[in-house]
Amino acid sequence: MAKKRQILVIGHNTKGCLPKHEKIAYEIGAEIAKSDSVLICGGLGGVMIAAAHGAKDAGGLTIGIIPQNDPAEANEYCDIVIPTGMGLARDFLNALSADGVIIVGGGSGTLSETCAAYMHKKPMVAIRNLDSSVDPFIGGYLDHRENIKIVGVDTPQEAIKKILELISP
Amino acid sequence: MAKKRQILVIGHNTKGCLPKHEKIAYEIGAEIAKSDSVLICGGLGGVMIAAAHGAKDAGGLTIGIIPQNDPAEANEYCDIVIPTGMGLARDFLNALSADGVIIVGGGSGTLSETCAAYMHKKPMVAIRNLDSSVDPFIGGYLDHRENIKIVGVDTPQEAIKKILELISP
Amino acid sequence: MAKKRQILVIGHNTKGCLPKHEKIAYEIGAEIAKSDSVLICGGLGGVMIAAAHGAKDAGGLTIGIIPQNDPAEANEYCDIVIPTGMGLARDFLNALSADGVIIVGGGSGTLSETCAAYMHKKPMVAIRNLDSSVDPFIGGYLDHRENIKIVGVDTPQEAIKKILELISP
Amino acid sequence: MAKKRQILVIGHNTKGCLPKHEKIAYEIGAEIAKSDSVLICGGLGGVMIAAAHGAKDAGGLTIGIIPQNDPAEANEYCDIVIPTGMGLARDFLNALSADGVIIVGGGSGTLSETCAAYMHKKPMVAIRNLDSSVDPFIGGYLDHRENIKIVGVDTPQEAIKKILELISP
Repeated sequence: MAKKRQILVIGHNTKGCLPKHEKIAYEIGAEIAKSDSVLICGGLGGVMIAAAHGAKDAGGLTIGIIPQNDPAEANEYCDIVIPTGMGLARDFLNALSADGVIIVGGGSGTLSETCAAYMHKKPMVAIRNLDSSVDPFIGGYLDHRENIKIVGVDTPQEAIKKILELISP
Repeated sequence: MAKKRQILVIGHNTKGCLPKHEKIAYEIGAEIAKSDSVLICGGLGGVMIAAAHGAKDAGGLTIGIIPQNDPAEANEYCDIVIPTGMGLARDFLNALSADGVIIVGGGSGTLSETCAAYMHKKPMVAIRNLDSSVDPFIGGYLDHRENIKIVGVDTPQEAIKKILELISP
Repeated sequence: MAKKRQILVIGHNTKGCLPKHEKIAYEIGAEIAKSDSVLICGGLGGVMIAAAHGAKDAGGLTIGIIPQNDPAEANEYCDIVIPTGMGLARDFLNALSADGVIIVGGGSGTLSETCAAYMHKKPMVAIRNLDSSVDPFIGGYLDHRENIKIVGVDTPQEAIKKILELISP
Repeated sequence: MAKKRQILVIGHNTKGCLPKHEKIAYEIGAEIAKSDSVLICGGLGGVMIAAAHGAKDAGGLTIGIIPQNDPAEANEYCDIVIPTGMGLARDFLNALSADGVIIVGGGSGTLSETCAAYMHKKPMVAIRNLDSSVDPFIGGYLDHRENIKIVGVDTPQEAIKKILELISP
């Protein structure tokens, strides 16, 4: 089995992404690369580009799964681009492509990806206190099914440590 | 232009759906039919089947957009079945097919549809106090973009009145 | 079970659609309505609009499943619009939504829908001699699996008669 | 821009795949790796596994885009797995992910991918004389739009040489 470990990073797109989100996402990207995992991201701006940038700077491999038809819409740190042509429904593909998910802030798109990951029981960790639409659910479950807990953490290092534990128990 | 008004009803699937949710969904389905609108739903159980049942009993037209390949998976009150074969990513198609959305409780799938509707700026109303994953957002926005407010209401009659106003201002 | 019989008509989009294709598609749309079936189509121009026009003129119900996000992109003869937002991959949804398929000429998009219908073993009839990309396969199979034959016919009346037979054997 | 050149290989799935198809696909996979391109494939059997096997043996990077939800359904030579959960409509994602396409035999699924690639104007070469559903179109166009020609070639070496020319003219 050649398959590498695939970790998805989600969070704010360009709009709403503050320097604090970018810094955390960059560090998480770098940690993912150092753990010999592949970074999966939505291929666009904000947290997505910061995480891909961090992973590339640390010598990692990066995949961008984008809503558009044209691979040129992806950010410049994606080694591989999957242009889905299916609009925002690509959020489900991001989630399905993940062995584990790290959440760095984020609005409705991030919440959509979190729902998709939850319905498919993907391990998830979320950085606390980043004004995210996911905040009401950190440390708990998205619904009564209790599929999988969204584990709260405070640092990029804690995020990667925890997600690796959850992926390979 | 032949297109009819299309109203999506979302909420709990079979698991988690209580008689109170079913009763409300049934009445909303009936109100949608009486308003000469078409009911769109996810075509499965719980709130979906109750709303379709109500719409059929009131002489309405019902559409079920389902995750599976086989139309026989849809509930028996769907006049038209769109088997998407794309799994839960069909939540985005439900949202895109709506001129307006009425939310009756619901868990992670309903929240996923709510995110999709929000990103596409669809008018939405939600029945309050039904233990829904959407609860933290009722009366406000899903994120900082403030795309469109999720308007809280208390009865099926109020829900239909409000959604009709929001669709044709 | 409320579900109505759903018949998909596919063929040339605006570009490449000649008056002969439109005339045949219009008549097939009318026949579908008269047989108390629902017309499913891709919701755009050429054969799609002609079939929907014919079905509406005969008092039928019409569904347009379109690639775009915005229902206003559908032609004016669609009662119900499903805006998939997934680009041309919506060809698979057209096929999956069909109990049977009638092919009226058509290029690469029609051939794509024909492949999707074939892989899902949907009954198909095709009008002969309309300079279609499907021509090499009429009267035979798309591949060695011999899933389902594409039955050749010469008139709209023959098309509807045959597809009804194939749907309910 | 970090993006690598992405070449899609399509053709028979397990059923219908003969040793001659496998041998050619294996060699094409190896040539793709040697050209410092990434292999994209549908991630399953037949031509897909043979091409991925060839690419891995030559030290290349391989991506499998599969119809299922579960990455474990992919063949063992895929470094990265994109489980789309959208059934055979994933054929469109394969096509969109390609900078160029090499066709090695194939039935209705391959023809579906060829239609998708043609509609998105992706350069394509096809190995001649392999009893493929694409055969009627090799050396010509899929339809009257004349979007892009399907160039016929006879060997894996010729296939890779030609597709590299077509991708970077």
